[in-house]
Amino acid sequence: MNSSDVLLRDLTDDGVLRLTLNDVGRRNALSEAMLKELSRAVATAASDPIIRVVVLAANGPAFCAGHDLKELTAGRAAGDRGRAYFAKIMDQCSCVMKAIVTCPKPVIAEVGGVATAAGCQLVASCDLAVATESARFSTPGVHIGLFCSTPMVALSRNVAAKHAMEMLLTGEMISASRAAEIGLINRAVAADELQEATMTLARKIASKSSSTLAIGKSAFYAQREMALSEAYDFASKVMVNNMLTKDAEEGIGAFVEKREPTWKDG
Amino acid sequence: MNSSDVLLRDLTDDGVLRLTLNDVGRRNALSEAMLKELSRAVATAASDPIIRVVVLAANGPAFCAGHDLKELTAGRAAGDRGRAYFAKIMDQCSCVMKAIVTCPKPVIAEVGGVATAAGCQLVASCDLAVATESARFSTPGVHIGLFCSTPMVALSRNVAAKHAMEMLLTGEMISASRAAEIGLINRAVAADELQEATMTLARKIASKSSSTLAIGKSAFYAQREMALSEAYDFASKVMVNNMLTKDAEEGIGAFVEKREPTWKDG
Amino acid sequence: MNSSDVLLRDLTDDGVLRLTLNDVGRRNALSEAMLKELSRAVATAASDPIIRVVVLAANGPAFCAGHDLKELTAGRAAGDRGRAYFAKIMDQCSCVMKAIVTCPKPVIAEVGGVATAAGCQLVASCDLAVATESARFSTPGVHIGLFCSTPMVALSRNVAAKHAMEMLLTGEMISASRAAEIGLINRAVAADELQEATMTLARKIASKSSSTLAIGKSAFYAQREMALSEAYDFASKVMVNNMLTKDAEEGIGAFVEKREPTWKDG
Repeated sequence: MNSSDVLLRDLTDDGVLRLTLNDVGRRNALSEAMLKELSRAVATAASDPIIRVVVLAANGPAFCAGHDLKELTAGRAAGDRGRAYFAKIMDQCSCVMKAIVTCPKPVIAEVGGVATAAGCQLVASCDLAVATESARFSTPGVHIGLFCSTPMVALSRNVAAKHAMEMLLTGEMISASRAAEIGLINRAVAADELQEATMTLARKIASKSSSTLAIGKSAFYAQREMALSEAYDFASKVMVNNMLTKDAEEGIGAFVEKREPTWKDG
Repeated sequence: MNSSDVLLRDLTDDGVLRLTLNDVGRRNALSEAMLKELSRAVATAASDPIIRVVVLAANGPAFCAGHDLKELTAGRAAGDRGRAYFAKIMDQCSCVMKAIVTCPKPVIAEVGGVATAAGCQLVASCDLAVATESARFSTPGVHIGLFCSTPMVALSRNVAAKHAMEMLLTGEMISASRAAEIGLINRAVAADELQEATMTLARKIASKSSSTLAIGKSAFYAQREMALSEAYDFASKVMVNNMLTKDAEEGIGAFVEKREPTWKDG
Repeated sequence: MNSSDVLLRDLTDDGVLRLTLNDVGRRNALSEAMLKELSRAVATAASDPIIRVVVLAANGPAFCAGHDLKELTAGRAAGDRGRAYFAKIMDQCSCVMKAIVTCPKPVIAEVGGVATAAGCQLVASCDLAVATESARFSTPGVHIGLFCSTPMVALSRNVAAKHAMEMLLTGEMISASRAAEIGLINRAVAADELQEATMTLARKIASKSSSTLAIGKSAFYAQREMALSEAYDFASKVMVNNMLTKDAEEGIGAFVEKREPTWKDG
């Protein structure tokens, strides 16, 4: 298998890039090869104007099983017992997660199976997530003596403290409906409706102005780390600049004139 | 219509100030006139000791439709394409939202209709919110190329990240029951019970010591922006000072003596 | 009653320390004696390697009624009207709450009755909480002129803003099922299943590596106060160091070899 085969790419006519994790034999683990391909694909999505929304899906029963433990274990053979290698992998993985957050295009997880450890983090890192009713989620690091500390960065920014702590301290699976209840995913749907539900959501968002989505997504993650007053000063400036874009002029004009807008994406 | 007619004021005997948005023809948009009146009314509520709780209600099918897009569009005629005007309006609007948060009197939204964009922000900015089951909420800026960046400051401080993102990226309406589920409002009630439910809640709070409510509301928003240890240092000082107020002495005394307290509001 | 009788200690064979609040006549109030005993017990739990998980339970109909108002009131007799005494008590109480958070062993509240004011804070401060269906929760300080400002530090880090505000501004009780819905507790169970459900949860966590739990719990509370990028840098370092512990080597090795791990707790 070529390294690029571990991640399939498919671009729809309406600008939705489907990325499909395709290393089924390794339960779509975030191997070095997979992290490299995800990193490349998200970078392309960020810069290519034809891509408006990204959907992150997976083949096989596991959405993503997290780090590749065999690869990590092999790293222990080094003179430093693996320290440098582990640091490299953790950094690569965090970079992929942060790239999803900073990508100007909305990223939607389409979760058809089990998402565990860094795989659960991947779902939490996406802007939106839709799952099948049979999908399950866990941060099971405690079972193997390796607490899911990086997954919890994303998890704890999605769900309430006690909900996150229960997943982290017990390592147990939660159902898709529970994941929806606590805010880890947006909704659970029937298995045969998953792709259609996700793609409908993706196309809806892809029909908006790309520049507007980029402005808003970036501002969302920036402002939530600020104090209220600072956040308002920041967001007010964002709104003023957004008002002066061609797409806001077109969009507001179309609204006032009761016609459909035609985005210039700028 | 006088500018003051866009916002009706009604003070009950028990100290509940009802502010009713009354620009039905403009769907209670946050026009310059409305922002000015809201700013005045909240300032009065903050300083007038007779006012103990504020209820923010609205006439007509829309609770509040957000910014007045016709006014904003007219601003584009200026030499700077509206930049200075947009900045002025965004600043005025953020000031009203922050004034609700910093007002020492609790503010309760009574939402009988549709609350969109900065209208949804208005609901999110209130301390509490009650809505009819038919009320709906959205941040629809993406439809017109203007991301709801200032509304999201309030929204993202009320609901989980993926719930906020879904509203912001799709611009779609959510129901009152969904709004209650995700924490945007406290509860949804039958339409014919809305005012009574809200006023019962308001009167219950109005029966408490105003000075105690002021201490607590202010501390709530201050401490949530602090790290845990800093928050405890701060809140412990607040508690000590609160203990030394006349109303805590009266309230605790009444509790120990099993009688009703008589607040001195100081 | 000896001061140590206000808090019963029971250590199970599998390393679960049960602390039982036992000042039933004072509704398990956080008196000076109780705070002192809790402080000691949590310190012991933190340092004693035989203790792997702490369960905080209570005898009597009240889980914990918060501060001891008679003690506090007696403090008013001092020349400074009690300022120094109130400051001492608030500091002691905050120290107990922070000690629960910083304790390297997970702490689970087992709530069989009413948890009010600082008693509700105690529940919120635990990592996890299980309650009977008849348990109830409130922050009723507004009834006595003393806003629950320190309880809200813990409460507002568990539940959404409007949910916290409703409890704080009205002082009203919420049910266990509502507490579960909003994230204040993990779940509500039938009264005759409370202890078994809590102990099962505790034993499950006690079966994990203590050093791994300590690494993860500490990292959880540290990273949630950081910005996203800083949190990832921090958590990545935590993961690397965790990978180099004996228990991660054992746990990952056992997983790869499909056998049960034997923790060395280091």
